[in-house]
Amino acid sequence: MKPTEIKIIEEIELDNPIFIEALPGIGHVGKLAADHIIAELEATKFAEIYSPYFPPQVFVGEGGIVENMVNELYYLKDIGENNQDIILLVGNTQGLSPEGQYEICGDILDFLESFNIKTMYTLGGIATGQPVEKYRVFGAATSSEIVEVLKEIDIEIRSNDGGIIGASGLFLGLGALRNIEGACLMGETPGYFIDAESAELILEKLSSLLSIEINVDKLEERAEETREMLAKAQQMEQDMINKTTAQDRDDLRYIG
Amino acid sequence: MKPTEIKIIEEIELDNPIFIEALPGIGHVGKLAADHIIAELEATKFAEIYSPYFPPQVFVGEGGIVENMVNELYYLKDIGENNQDIILLVGNTQGLSPEGQYEICGDILDFLESFNIKTMYTLGGIATGQPVEKYRVFGAATSSEIVEVLKEIDIEIRSNDGGIIGASGLFLGLGALRNIEGACLMGETPGYFIDAESAELILEKLSSLLSIEINVDKLEERAEETREMLAKAQQMEQDMINKTTAQDRDDLRYIG
Amino acid sequence: MKPTEIKIIEEIELDNPIFIEALPGIGHVGKLAADHIIAELEATKFAEIYSPYFPPQVFVGEGGIVENMVNELYYLKDIGENNQDIILLVGNTQGLSPEGQYEICGDILDFLESFNIKTMYTLGGIATGQPVEKYRVFGAATSSEIVEVLKEIDIEIRSNDGGIIGASGLFLGLGALRNIEGACLMGETPGYFIDAESAELILEKLSSLLSIEINVDKLEERAEETREMLAKAQQMEQDMINKTTAQDRDDLRYIG
Amino acid sequence: MKPTEIKIIEEIELDNPIFIEALPGIGHVGKLAADHIIAELEATKFAEIYSPYFPPQVFVGEGGIVENMVNELYYLKDIGENNQDIILLVGNTQGLSPEGQYEICGDILDFLESFNIKTMYTLGGIATGQPVEKYRVFGAATSSEIVEVLKEIDIEIRSNDGGIIGASGLFLGLGALRNIEGACLMGETPGYFIDAESAELILEKLSSLLSIEINVDKLEERAEETREMLAKAQQMEQDMINKTTAQDRDDLRYIG
Repeated sequence: MKPTEIKIIEEIELDNPIFIEALPGIGHVGKLAADHIIAELEATKFAEIYSPYFPPQVFVGEGGIVENMVNELYYLKDIGENNQDIILLVGNTQGLSPEGQYEICGDILDFLESFNIKTMYTLGGIATGQPVEKYRVFGAATSSEIVEVLKEIDIEIRSNDGGIIGASGLFLGLGALRNIEGACLMGETPGYFIDAESAELILEKLSSLLSIEINVDKLEERAEETREMLAKAQQMEQDMINKTTAQDRDDLRYIG
Repeated sequence: MKPTEIKIIEEIELDNPIFIEALPGIGHVGKLAADHIIAELEATKFAEIYSPYFPPQVFVGEGGIVENMVNELYYLKDIGENNQDIILLVGNTQGLSPEGQYEICGDILDFLESFNIKTMYTLGGIATGQPVEKYRVFGAATSSEIVEVLKEIDIEIRSNDGGIIGASGLFLGLGALRNIEGACLMGETPGYFIDAESAELILEKLSSLLSIEINVDKLEERAEETREMLAKAQQMEQDMINKTTAQDRDDLRYIG
Repeated sequence: MKPTEIKIIEEIELDNPIFIEALPGIGHVGKLAADHIIAELEATKFAEIYSPYFPPQVFVGEGGIVENMVNELYYLKDIGENNQDIILLVGNTQGLSPEGQYEICGDILDFLESFNIKTMYTLGGIATGQPVEKYRVFGAATSSEIVEVLKEIDIEIRSNDGGIIGASGLFLGLGALRNIEGACLMGETPGYFIDAESAELILEKLSSLLSIEINVDKLEERAEETREMLAKAQQMEQDMINKTTAQDRDDLRYIG
Repeated sequence: MKPTEIKIIEEIELDNPIFIEALPGIGHVGKLAADHIIAELEATKFAEIYSPYFPPQVFVGEGGIVENMVNELYYLKDIGENNQDIILLVGNTQGLSPEGQYEICGDILDFLESFNIKTMYTLGGIATGQPVEKYRVFGAATSSEIVEVLKEIDIEIRSNDGGIIGASGLFLGLGALRNIEGACLMGETPGYFIDAESAELILEKLSSLLSIEINVDKLEERAEETREMLAKAQQMEQDMINKTTAQDRDDLRYIG
């Protein structure tokens, strides 16, 4: 099996950057928040990541141009009150299989090792399955010190209540084994649409943690664009998949 | 895990060949079109490809002779107005697992590297799930220049509308990372039978793109043969599988 | 991933042996036939094969003694009219995943290479899903010469009618790529019980092909023993699995 | 794929230790028993084991602190009448895939090789799916000598009755190939709750086998704690998973 391919676009030096993981997940809360930070604060892409554990497909984007499944690393320098450097991990997919998730996460952490990261925030969503009346952000962390910090900014602490599945959990856990402390921020969301309100609350908490300011005026607009694209994509895909999977599988197996 | 095995049948030299991928998929549109080109233009097989990610089985073909699951590479030299060289990838299967798809696709692209391919067309189908009144060919490409070329020959451009799953998508996407530009041509088809009409339209568009002429008189006949073989195969297989899978799995697990 | 482990029990030399594959499958037709040959002709085990692609379990056998999942190689020297040497592959499982099937099959063929095998017979079943009135043996082969031989002894030739899935198909197909000619004999069987009648017919055809005699007096008795063991095993397992799988999976995922 | 990572916490020397495997499984019978031994006899952790075949997630534990999926090795020195040394394998998960189970089990046995283990007990449960009136412990072993020992302490011997699936079976089987003799003790349990009664009976049998005494006063209390944690975890997880899986998968596949 080919290894994770990390294509470096720009060689950079950063000063004790904070790492933020926001790969696509429940309600796209984390992804929407991170994409917004990248756009508003004009983060720069410095690496692309390809893996044989991504879905074997391309996405047809704007104007009929195909896009590979990819994870991307962006950086921000000297932002906020503390002149903080930040690395963001975003993308259009996560690894498909359990082993793939471990492989990709481990390889990205290996790559990031030289940046001497001490702190990590992973962003995700918690699906309620029904309309959310008053949005909340839940949190879990690698140490009780960080749990206290989360509590101070009104993040509700999950306790003994199950797992954090996928990249947001795995990066936090495997990071801790490498002495990177951190937390996972999970925005409550119905889970069945792109949720700008939930992402806004995540951004508010993250602003506090990073001592930065993020203008959220365009967040709803950005969410709307994503929603439209998603709606079209899902409808078309659903048509294709529902109608063809059985046939397709038969074909793959039985035809000479 | 054993690697992809590429068995070279003939060492060849080609002049800037165009690569056409047409592994089996929806409605066998792409496969039927490519098999027709191979037969009509008398393409020569120069390599066979075996992978542990293919289905673990053989196909029982004509006269009771077993056939391995295989992908095959054919070439054509000096065809059409431009004396164009062409490489075609066909076969009776695709990789079964996501990782397998990446592995096989990457290994084939590695193998083809020495041929200095600049352009690729991948052929597939889009299932409508119902009878098609007026057949269309949809397209997506790696650059806006190619999108314009597709539009000129009345290929409908998909935009922001989901993915191209499997080999047709992956070859195009991974090819682009190696500076091979190209497009995926997707023939609209009900999806539940071998569709000669859809394949004919794909061939028409491909003829324009390659500046070649392809006689389609025997296409329906070829589709009919494939249909008959497929019908027999699927009926027999269905019988076997429906009735035996549960039993078989039990046996595999519990018998000493 | 650890490789296939082949534990050699006895170093042997054989004279152009014929290879017979009979791993467990539909109705245990092939396995029952091969186990009968091993017992009646007193074949000697010379190697055991372990693979990480077997089911991760042990079988609880006679007297509470656990048995590993294993494939086994036996040999017979100078049997029948032609003083033929024979290698038999039997066991209590096949590889679970598609890749595993390829890996195990390829590694066993690698191991057998030094024996200079020219001919292979793989034994299997074809499930009818209903009582069989008049038993038949179906066949498919790697060459038309062998197809003719099969026809002469009243084996019905399958033609263009689907695949042979699993070890019986894969050994035949991958063997052919290594210049081992051969055939798959498939006994018609309801598929939902251990079928001595079907196995007897397979043995009859195999006797002709190998020019050996096999006493089948104890075949029904042997089938009955296997049936009883299987019945107990399946009932107990079914109880365990039905009632615990969901719970078990939850436990594996959520408990700290 | 990254290999199993064994993080050694303390370098130890032991005198012919007995190995006890008790990873989570049916009714958590084995895990509860082993966790109780570790707490009561104050066993010391000497290694942690991480694998890419574990579930890709973290568990949110007490106070919002995340815990990695992990297996752990503990030791006890000079316990019981025979001044016996013991190694225990516990954890919060097993490998997810069949290959993963083989990989992890093989790597742990490799690591334990230097301790010169001669005897192994693996602990598990057998689910009845209904309330158990009179609890029993079932057993299976690697030799008839050990079967006799089990019978003497009123363990019911399973015979020809199916498999032992997962780590408890695999460690026993693969251990036997390395000349480690042993038995699997399976506590009867309804299977749908944390069963202290079943674990107590397992502990009773294990006390006999190891000639040690284990106070079980706090066992029910420990079970109750685990039950509460499990109940909360499962409810929350169930909510999350039921409501979000479909959406989540769509997102993973179709969003750019």
